[in-house]
Amino acid sequence: MKLLLISNSTNAGEEYLRYPMPEIGRFLQGVSEIVFVPYAAVTFSYAEYEKKVQARLSELGIRVRSVHRAKDPARMVREAEALCVGGGNTFALAKKMQEQGLMAAILRKIKAGTPYVGWSAGSNVACPTICTTNDMPIVEPQSFRAVGAVKFQINPHYLDANPEGHAGETREQRILEYIEANPRRWVAGLREGCMLRHAEGKLELIGKRPMRMFRKGMEPFEVQPGSDLSFLL
Amino acid sequence: MKLLLISNSTNAGEEYLRYPMPEIGRFLQGVSEIVFVPYAAVTFSYAEYEKKVQARLSELGIRVRSVHRAKDPARMVREAEALCVGGGNTFALAKKMQEQGLMAAILRKIKAGTPYVGWSAGSNVACPTICTTNDMPIVEPQSFRAVGAVKFQINPHYLDANPEGHAGETREQRILEYIEANPRRWVAGLREGCMLRHAEGKLELIGKRPMRMFRKGMEPFEVQPGSDLSFLL
Repeated sequence: MKLLLISNSTNAGEEYLRYPMPEIGRFLQGVSEIVFVPYAAVTFSYAEYEKKVQARLSELGIRVRSVHRAKDPARMVREAEALCVGGGNTFALAKKMQEQGLMAAILRKIKAGTPYVGWSAGSNVACPTICTTNDMPIVEPQSFRAVGAVKFQINPHYLDANPEGHAGETREQRILEYIEANPRRWVAGLREGCMLRHAEGKLELIGKRPMRMFRKGMEPFEVQPGSDLSFLL
Repeated sequence: MKLLLISNSTNAGEEYLRYPMPEIGRFLQGVSEIVFVPYAAVTFSYAEYEKKVQARLSELGIRVRSVHRAKDPARMVREAEALCVGGGNTFALAKKMQEQGLMAAILRKIKAGTPYVGWSAGSNVACPTICTTNDMPIVEPQSFRAVGAVKFQINPHYLDANPEGHAGETREQRILEYIEANPRRWVAGLREGCMLRHAEGKLELIGKRPMRMFRKGMEPFEVQPGSDLSFLL
């Protein structure tokens, strides 16, 4: 399995997909074409999304082909050299991926060794379910089940505090609710600017900030970049 | 129909359910017992939730009876003098309400004139669907369909900005995605400290802050407390 699961496409104030580019470049070394899943886009077109990602991946000499152009998207996935699922709305993404049979097709490819890059919603769908997304449920997918390439849940854009004066649940409270309802799952709170790399049987946190781990019955704790993450495998 | 749909139970730094109490008191005038739906509670028990709400409603001389104690919760709803659905996790709430047939039972009661008070998740479930909740999908309900007492969607805890330095979607961006995918629905961004009161065929915004309105094809706009909201009925 080769996975690069990125918290967020873009850090505040930076260019689109700028900060993860060096890591994406290393991860996709030797890849000349990537199959892109744009279905998390809601307020802009799939073609625009493809173009935006192509503009960035051109720097690595990689051609981007979006599944929305294919008559048979699952086949395009089956024949892919590498896979990429972009961020946006996780519910919209899951719904369309389920309708086209892409969850199962992508899992098979990942198991066969095809590299997978995802960010934000694209990292969520690599998990067993979409249950730890931050997104608004704007459409109803067939189910919450996702690709399941890893056994734990990721909460991308993990955030420590609420804006001042706001009384809604903090991210930590939300995840504590999740583990209460799902006591056998780990949740990784992946802060912005960070990513998880799974390659050669090893899982690694890359970034400048620690990741916050949650599991029912344990105090939440921080893991630093470079720590042993074998407990998640 | 008599509805009191409250954005949030508690303003930051205040006591539980403190700010909406005068309004709840006026709304429930003459009511001696209320049937309470506690299923949005996840990290604390339904009994604790009932107790917490009872402690506050005792000030109004109202007895709180939680449906989780009933063998037949739908029957308890059918026989209720007034209904109250508390906040917490909207997905957990919807799942349990659907399992017990409470969505339909509550709609029938509301149509028959029984007063309904909800806050946060309890306001979300009064809408056609749970699609504009801010909550994390920690469990999978049977469907996203909810009570449907009103024809528009409420986004409770509506928030204008992200915390500084955070690149996730703003609330406005999330709702713009919702209306893109659901072009025939109004969404009311109900800020904390505010509530919607529906009585005698009239819908009214109560609170010190305006409400932000969204619909596909229109620029989002603000409505002030006291404005004509008949376009939502």
